[in-house]
Amino acid sequence: MPDNTHIKYTLNEDEMPRTWYNIVADLPRPPDPVLHPGTHQPIGPADLAPLFPMAIIQQEVSTEPYIEIPEPVRQVYRQWRPSPLFRARRLEQALDTPARIYYKYEGVSPAGSHKPNTAVAQAFYNKQEGIQKISTETGAGQWGSSLAMAGAFFGIEVEIFMVKVSYNQKPYRRYLMEAFGGMVHASPTNLTEAGRSILAQDPDSSGSLGIAISEAVEVAAKSGGKVKYALGSVLNHVLLHQTIIGQEALLQFAQADDYPDVVIGCTGGGSNFAGLAFPFIGEARRKGLSTRFLAAEPMACPSLTRGIYAYDFGDTVGMTPLTRMHTLGHDFMPAGIHAGGLRYHGMAPLISLLYDEKVIEANAYHQTSVFEAAVQFTRTEGIIPAPESSHAIRAAINEALEAKAAGQERVILFNLSGHGHFDMAAYNSYFSGNLEDYEYPAKAVAEAQKHMPQIV
Amino acid sequence: MPDNTHIKYTLNEDEMPRTWYNIVADLPRPPDPVLHPGTHQPIGPADLAPLFPMAIIQQEVSTEPYIEIPEPVRQVYRQWRPSPLFRARRLEQALDTPARIYYKYEGVSPAGSHKPNTAVAQAFYNKQEGIQKISTETGAGQWGSSLAMAGAFFGIEVEIFMVKVSYNQKPYRRYLMEAFGGMVHASPTNLTEAGRSILAQDPDSSGSLGIAISEAVEVAAKSGGKVKYALGSVLNHVLLHQTIIGQEALLQFAQADDYPDVVIGCTGGGSNFAGLAFPFIGEARRKGLSTRFLAAEPMACPSLTRGIYAYDFGDTVGMTPLTRMHTLGHDFMPAGIHAGGLRYHGMAPLISLLYDEKVIEANAYHQTSVFEAAVQFTRTEGIIPAPESSHAIRAAINEALEAKAAGQERVILFNLSGHGHFDMAAYNSYFSGNLEDYEYPAKAVAEAQKHMPQIV
Repeated sequence: MPDNTHIKYTLNEDEMPRTWYNIVADLPRPPDPVLHPGTHQPIGPADLAPLFPMAIIQQEVSTEPYIEIPEPVRQVYRQWRPSPLFRARRLEQALDTPARIYYKYEGVSPAGSHKPNTAVAQAFYNKQEGIQKISTETGAGQWGSSLAMAGAFFGIEVEIFMVKVSYNQKPYRRYLMEAFGGMVHASPTNLTEAGRSILAQDPDSSGSLGIAISEAVEVAAKSGGKVKYALGSVLNHVLLHQTIIGQEALLQFAQADDYPDVVIGCTGGGSNFAGLAFPFIGEARRKGLSTRFLAAEPMACPSLTRGIYAYDFGDTVGMTPLTRMHTLGHDFMPAGIHAGGLRYHGMAPLISLLYDEKVIEANAYHQTSVFEAAVQFTRTEGIIPAPESSHAIRAAINEALEAKAAGQERVILFNLSGHGHFDMAAYNSYFSGNLEDYEYPAKAVAEAQKHMPQIV
Repeated sequence: MPDNTHIKYTLNEDEMPRTWYNIVADLPRPPDPVLHPGTHQPIGPADLAPLFPMAIIQQEVSTEPYIEIPEPVRQVYRQWRPSPLFRARRLEQALDTPARIYYKYEGVSPAGSHKPNTAVAQAFYNKQEGIQKISTETGAGQWGSSLAMAGAFFGIEVEIFMVKVSYNQKPYRRYLMEAFGGMVHASPTNLTEAGRSILAQDPDSSGSLGIAISEAVEVAAKSGGKVKYALGSVLNHVLLHQTIIGQEALLQFAQADDYPDVVIGCTGGGSNFAGLAFPFIGEARRKGLSTRFLAAEPMACPSLTRGIYAYDFGDTVGMTPLTRMHTLGHDFMPAGIHAGGLRYHGMAPLISLLYDEKVIEANAYHQTSVFEAAVQFTRTEGIIPAPESSHAIRAAINEALEAKAAGQERVILFNLSGHGHFDMAAYNSYFSGNLEDYEYPAKAVAEAQKHMPQIV
């Protein structure tokens, strides 16, 4: 009889963390200023006011180490939080590794990923300031569905620009957003100047997160204050809201009487990696631990491992403020891999800074090897992972196999940021042998750099 | 600010029930004998041995009130059990009802429904007797994916005959079964005599659970003992394995210091309804409570409300033993509603007996009204329900609205047996206005009765 013991570490509701952790208080150096897209001068909170409610802008620039989670946000979190920490014993047995593999599972949220952690918070702060409508973009749809759900809970209308390639690849995610009451467009659209300018250049454009951001930002910017904009990753306040993941995991590791040697998350904009890793980075700094932190990114869109560290726009058209980050260029068009949530040209400025300071490592993976890991995980752990999260699984399995080769007892923690229930067409492509691997073009960064803003 | 408080009742792992509850010990009268399909004489355990391992046959005929859950089954259950009991406060507020609505959520299992409760147990008992392959049928795919998962955990090959209309309507479920390593066919197939005989009569047959059962039974029956058969509902042992749901809910209601006035589940073969309701029926008998029990079935396949109570085959071709049940006739072909898991001509014998004895009630619902309830639930509770489970939501909302009209404090409990992540195409049909309602044809039972075995 196989040993199927499944080990989970749960927390009671009253053990759910009461604060988010703000890594800005613990960085090796201060963050670089955010610059105005036209003047290239540092901007202040007032410049962001057309897009975000003031409570969120204050979080974006805060240097306080801990920020209280408002009670109305905790009320909603309680439906699925604290989320479980699992020990992947069946996977360990299949790999025959001396490593201990743990994963924090964020797919237990109703929308199926970590994104509601920030969607609920952002909907709350908008509601508090009387906002009745929010515009946003989405890649694979994890973010759009989470914000649509949060909008339903707080009585806020949500308009979503969904990257066209994902709109077509992942119709179930679109239906989910609609079931939550969200309005969904395939981006680029004819509804915005940004969309029309892209379509004028390429009527068959399959879209990108950068383009969809341009469209959503434009809707808010031109609304005369009636519509605010929300972003699902990259920005400081988004990463902040996700830190409840790592805060919980720290408590769960205390319960397990264990501690990770390496903490892994997939990275597109960076929010689920940050959510898990930042509290452990803070812990490592405070206690002088040598924990490793590994960002797992797609080979088709490798912003950390192949991008340059420079000021760039967050969107394609060039409407957003400039931030210093690892970027493939704001007009880079990533190949249509199934991990739509990772198809973003830039990386969160906080993660970029930590990578530049060598606090964290990064590796890039091809999608066929990522799906191979996903299927091994499915057959051992029973959970079918999202293509995005499967990058973290690939990295974790590689770490476990390295530990085996070295005869080491490595403790591996990764973020299973979401399930793949809405991504089954991708699995079908994999099983049918139709998945393509896309090498990032070597000359692409040099090319992109020509279009990037020259900051002196 | 809306009141978004979400209330959940959880149990610790060590509070997970150690026994299943067997209602056969508490029935108002003994169950009717099961008859041989040819001789119409009562059959014994030996007659079932070609299909099932002996441990399962013993459970099928057991009259013990409590049966111990084996430790290897509990090992697997621990991944997602005990499942949460939620109070649907946001739904209550939307309905403005004095009723208190609770739901037990079985969608937390990795396969997304209650089906793994029995799939894991059946895989275990088969493994224990050295079986290396199991054949089965599936409607919407909840059962097939659960057994494929359990097979992966216990190292057993799983071959699945999936009803053709669902195979086409719900490709994501098929991909899920394949991801777990299952082999899936669209039934009727050319692989079995049963399938070929159906295709000879109707080459375009869209299939039914009855036909798929015939095919799966044939594979086991002709394997010379190498392949066993597994059923996902209807039979006593399947209902038994599901009672962990109600056993947990009883503990959770004690925690909530509340008790249901009415217990609701959707019914196809009857297993999720039985799983929740049977322990409460036992409790009502022991304590003399007047709890109501309500089975929610589809108008397109209303076996309890429109069927007759008679001996009939469990499959279409007539290979299975005869059981006394509410049936629409073993060759009834239900319309292709999206709740594929409820498209079964018969009802579990234990539920049929309780309905005949007026211990339980039943109502039938049209699918558009069911989807309307599902969308209201999605926008308030955040969880997108399976079309099957949404029948229970429709019934629960109706109860809550009746309570409101009567000014009553009714306590309503329903089983949210699964999520609808793999059923989003059905939601798209609903939103597009393409859902049809199918009235059960009034003459159909009289017609079916002509083909039914005449038991004297």
